[in-house]
Amino acid sequence: MFENKAGSQPSGRPAPVQRRGVERVRAILEAAEVLLCEQGYEGSTLKAIGERTGIPQASIYHYFGDRNQVDVELARRHVHELDIRIIAALERRVSKNLNQAIVVYVDLLLTYFREFPAFVELWYFGRSPAVAEVAQAFDEAQAELFWRYLIDRNFIGADTPRLVVELAFEAGNKLFDAAFRRSRSGDELTIAETKRLINAYLSTYAP
Amino acid sequence: MFENKAGSQPSGRPAPVQRRGVERVRAILEAAEVLLCEQGYEGSTLKAIGERTGIPQASIYHYFGDRNQVDVELARRHVHELDIRIIAALERRVSKNLNQAIVVYVDLLLTYFREFPAFVELWYFGRSPAVAEVAQAFDEAQAELFWRYLIDRNFIGADTPRLVVELAFEAGNKLFDAAFRRSRSGDELTIAETKRLINAYLSTYAP
Repeated sequence: MFENKAGSQPSGRPAPVQRRGVERVRAILEAAEVLLCEQGYEGSTLKAIGERTGIPQASIYHYFGDRNQVDVELARRHVHELDIRIIAALERRVSKNLNQAIVVYVDLLLTYFREFPAFVELWYFGRSPAVAEVAQAFDEAQAELFWRYLIDRNFIGADTPRLVVELAFEAGNKLFDAAFRRSRSGDELTIAETKRLINAYLSTYAP
Repeated sequence: MFENKAGSQPSGRPAPVQRRGVERVRAILEAAEVLLCEQGYEGSTLKAIGERTGIPQASIYHYFGDRNQVDVELARRHVHELDIRIIAALERRVSKNLNQAIVVYVDLLLTYFREFPAFVELWYFGRSPAVAEVAQAFDEAQAELFWRYLIDRNFIGADTPRLVVELAFEAGNKLFDAAFRRSRSGDELTIAETKRLINAYLSTYAP
């Protein structure tokens, strides 16, 4: 998921210098991802990234002013990938009712977080103000997407305010956070209750 | 609500020096409360408290090492008062069903926050790690209390795991937070949805 668009030219092959930049950015992000997994949020510093990649500190600063910028770039890429998976899952339209739609959505998130423990570190444990902004934009966009989907599929009434689905997302996020604080792989019981809570709430808006 | 126990002797009247300490602590906390209301979290500094009370900075430091200690002491006193009100409300046992119990509880919280906007500032806008600890301890104690109450009144099944009510509290808190971020006096629509969400979820554990 670390294909990098920065540095590529509008057409043709990138010049050698740009190509080195693309490769270094990719190496920095891959090292950050591994460090987050192995050593947690505190361990993923620019210094550790430098030691792991062999890229001199001065060169790292050329691409990222501080570790927060690395975190934000990682978070953006994960969010982008997650977006693609969610849209694909919703477009498959396999869900026959509200509860199934919620289960598909929550399980997709859960699978993603389990596949990328580094993202769990960034999202739930190290959330800096900059990553929090990425998270908020993602949550708002997702709530709107899911709201339209639920109405489109007639799983909730057509006049259900968007606020309702936004609040379901806020509550659900809070419980996901609780699930990952209880267990690094997401506490099963808490995840099950998250689905139950969202389903119970949104069911009150059934058409 | 600012009776201060610190500095009082086990029996008899406090000595004059202690009495001055009690009065100063009270003056500091009252000033902090007013500053939080009038100028928000950022405005309630030890410097501003000194200017408002006329107490020299050095004397303020005698009682509070930094502003966080003032915040924590204020938060503790509010939480103590809120506790008393909640227990009194539950003991009146006026609620006839789960939904009524939730409405009584949420409205009591809402009334309290509206009565003390300084507490809203501390609780939702300036939450420092130290105040977050007070909040977490309060939430856990409240969830346990409410869980026992709901089972005792047969509003939820006797075998409902405590986790369920804990998660309802976590979700409810998150939505309360959203309500006060939307409006300084607590957005009515969001509060109504908070009741609806908690009721829908806990209803799935009806006996």
